[in-house]
Amino acid sequence: MSLLVTGSIGIDNVRTPFGEVKDVYGGSAVYFSFAARLFTPVRFVGVVGEDFPADFRAFLERADIDLSGMEVRKGSKTFRWSGQYATPTADAETTEVELNVLAEAGPKIPPQFRDSKYVFLAATHPELQQDLVRQLTDPCLVVADTRDLWIKTQHEGLLKTLGMVTGAILNDAEAKLLAEESNLALAGRKILEYGPRFVVIKKGEHGVMLVTREGLAVLPAYPTTEVKDPTGAGDSFAGGLMGYLATQDDCGLAALKKALAYGTICASFTIEDFSLRKLEKITPADVAGRLKEYTEMLSL
Amino acid sequence: MSLLVTGSIGIDNVRTPFGEVKDVYGGSAVYFSFAARLFTPVRFVGVVGEDFPADFRAFLERADIDLSGMEVRKGSKTFRWSGQYATPTADAETTEVELNVLAEAGPKIPPQFRDSKYVFLAATHPELQQDLVRQLTDPCLVVADTRDLWIKTQHEGLLKTLGMVTGAILNDAEAKLLAEESNLALAGRKILEYGPRFVVIKKGEHGVMLVTREGLAVLPAYPTTEVKDPTGAGDSFAGGLMGYLATQDDCGLAALKKALAYGTICASFTIEDFSLRKLEKITPADVAGRLKEYTEMLSL
Repeated sequence: MSLLVTGSIGIDNVRTPFGEVKDVYGGSAVYFSFAARLFTPVRFVGVVGEDFPADFRAFLERADIDLSGMEVRKGSKTFRWSGQYATPTADAETTEVELNVLAEAGPKIPPQFRDSKYVFLAATHPELQQDLVRQLTDPCLVVADTRDLWIKTQHEGLLKTLGMVTGAILNDAEAKLLAEESNLALAGRKILEYGPRFVVIKKGEHGVMLVTREGLAVLPAYPTTEVKDPTGAGDSFAGGLMGYLATQDDCGLAALKKALAYGTICASFTIEDFSLRKLEKITPADVAGRLKEYTEMLSL
Repeated sequence: MSLLVTGSIGIDNVRTPFGEVKDVYGGSAVYFSFAARLFTPVRFVGVVGEDFPADFRAFLERADIDLSGMEVRKGSKTFRWSGQYATPTADAETTEVELNVLAEAGPKIPPQFRDSKYVFLAATHPELQQDLVRQLTDPCLVVADTRDLWIKTQHEGLLKTLGMVTGAILNDAEAKLLAEESNLALAGRKILEYGPRFVVIKKGEHGVMLVTREGLAVLPAYPTTEVKDPTGAGDSFAGGLMGYLATQDDCGLAALKKALAYGTICASFTIEDFSLRKLEKITPADVAGRLKEYTEMLSL
């Protein structure tokens, strides 16, 4: 069924212990889309400035991402982010950020996308997330990401967003912060009380925890030895997860676990090269091959 | 087949965010034994002082642990350790330690134990570990634990120990330190070059990684919400692992993975109460029940 993503699209500078890249393609919605498109067509909603490079647009179009929801705003500039990682598994340290168009009004979902059934709201201001949910006519599954900034500064607003979505995705530090609880499983259960039917807690190199009213599951990360750049791991994880779910008519515990596994596999490809260099080359067969290996690794 | 453990036996004071206990039963070989005995009889080798409490001996005897290898040394005092944990998942901070008998000559393996097939050497001075291996007549599987102290101060000696054993168990920080490599899988592969056929890297609440020449596997920890005291988690993990292996005539990748799972389950019980309070009550049926849950959690 139809899958829509809204989030950032931008140009990154990234430095990791394995190298440095400048002016590369990035943004949460972009990483999401490149993973999700391996499962199902992707409807893209976001805003860029009039400086948005033609080669970036062509890159997205070649990947068959439907850009009808990408607004090119006159007089505005595209989002830019610079970050570095002290180690391949450390959190990103933002060294420079130009919010540009992201500091202005949010995107609108075009009429032809409003019937989308599966929707991913990448991390952004909780009120913008709510505004986007209200533009949907009959969503079946809406999942929101968030980040520490919104937990700290827009706590009430974020709780309202969580009351409007089916699932929440956040990392371990964020889950502990939001729930004020240091045990991750208990933190997940507390977040369920805010409204979502499931909570996905990302633990980076340590895998992922799923908390639903039915139960709890933890899966490890795929153990790759080729980490070059962790940028986009979380968003491509979400892309694999939602991409798979959009092909199923089911979000019970078993389907969600399989979705976590697909997300895990997509993220494992992302981090093996800078920017989208690896992810853009991956095919569904690559995903299936690595999933098979991963499933075998976990079979006892 | 016969399973022997050598390691510490001592009296602990422990403080965690959930409470404090004084003068409780502890020691690496004790935690190991209580997990391993759920699978197979355990031969215990260690040294205590003449102050060793009768109730502690009775506690071990009630658990059917064969104490023929426990030396009660005249004029010596039993090992004592005091530690605290800032959070339930933090590393222990030693607040006081009286090595006592552990600073003296190591234990000897009694003649009737020298034919042991499965042997676990808990963390101790690498030369003592080598001395213990040399006392075995025809071991089938010898696994050694170690710790940062020995990696830093007895590096050459530790490499020699690793050349004499079948398997190594260590935690993630220790593996990185020993291999001088920040990627865990690569660290594990480097440690394989020192001699063992497999390396088990413990990641605490994040599970465990197995590295062998055949391949690599990562399993998550069992997600318990009842953590009270992490003391002994690693040693009871090793106990479950070795206990299971001692019942198999196989240490291929599949058997090792299953052994990791049994270790994981034993550790998950250990941390649910202080000292051995939970682990001493567990039956093989409890282990089987939780293993079933864990296996289902991991089945995709």
